[in-house]
Amino acid sequence: MSTTVTKAQIDARLIMPFVNSTRNVLQTMLGLATTIDRPRIKSVPAPEYDYSAIIGFSGQIVGVVVVSFRRETAIKMVNAFAGDEVEPDSSDFSDAIGELANMIAGAAKKDLGGVASISVPTVILGKGHIVARPSDIPCMVIPCKTEAGEFAVEISIKQA
Amino acid sequence: MSTTVTKAQIDARLIMPFVNSTRNVLQTMLGLATTIDRPRIKSVPAPEYDYSAIIGFSGQIVGVVVVSFRRETAIKMVNAFAGDEVEPDSSDFSDAIGELANMIAGAAKKDLGGVASISVPTVILGKGHIVARPSDIPCMVIPCKTEAGEFAVEISIKQA
Repeated sequence: MSTTVTKAQIDARLIMPFVNSTRNVLQTMLGLATTIDRPRIKSVPAPEYDYSAIIGFSGQIVGVVVVSFRRETAIKMVNAFAGDEVEPDSSDFSDAIGELANMIAGAAKKDLGGVASISVPTVILGKGHIVARPSDIPCMVIPCKTEAGEFAVEISIKQA
Repeated sequence: MSTTVTKAQIDARLIMPFVNSTRNVLQTMLGLATTIDRPRIKSVPAPEYDYSAIIGFSGQIVGVVVVSFRRETAIKMVNAFAGDEVEPDSSDFSDAIGELANMIAGAAKKDLGGVASISVPTVILGKGHIVARPSDIPCMVIPCKTEAGEFAVEISIKQA
């Protein structure tokens, strides 16, 4: 990872906690093994998604973490999470997507080395939407692969 | 307002600071007078937007505030904010949308009566996207009208 994560871009110590928490949450809550590709600086134009869960960080760590899925992957993951079929356009569905992101961010927060608080999740539904962050915080993408499909954890945080 | 904002739904004291800050920020930064319609509980299905700026609250006030625009309104407002034409798909454009939301949320925060911190703004771009919040926090919509068009400030916060 050291070849892609440079100090000037984003501190690797802010990324690894999310790699670990993503793997742990998916294994524990969904029974899914996750293959994590090398984190990379988010490119423009970015891939587009159908569902994104957004968690804000404030305190000694500021920024935002976004977990994004295409529709088919989101459906498989939410059904695995709920242990039942959940209607994709229901509030239960967006709550489940938000809760997965909340678990990933919450578990990572403990290892970030600062006192930070996280916001409740907001979930975006919309075919091919794009998530833009303040351009003064670099965004690292953690590409994740599972049997249920691919998804991305996108991290735009820095020490305040 | 007392007919639509009941204690069981959301505390009016959490809404008025946003009514005031929206009006002040638009007048000061954009030179736009804003007509504020009666705040109402967000209905389902909700109106769809093209741009949404999302700000998370944490601390003694938790939740999320979203400022949403249709494309034509966003373009007029950003150009008024920048004092120049800004390319709608540029990072300058989403930064400007985010900064407007940040000013509205930041000014309101002081009057909310609690110690809270706000996250950096995240801006969603996507025709007809929907923003879902955790279903356990009610969402109040403040419908806003200006010469540049209509937009909405959507408030889903509560005291922690």
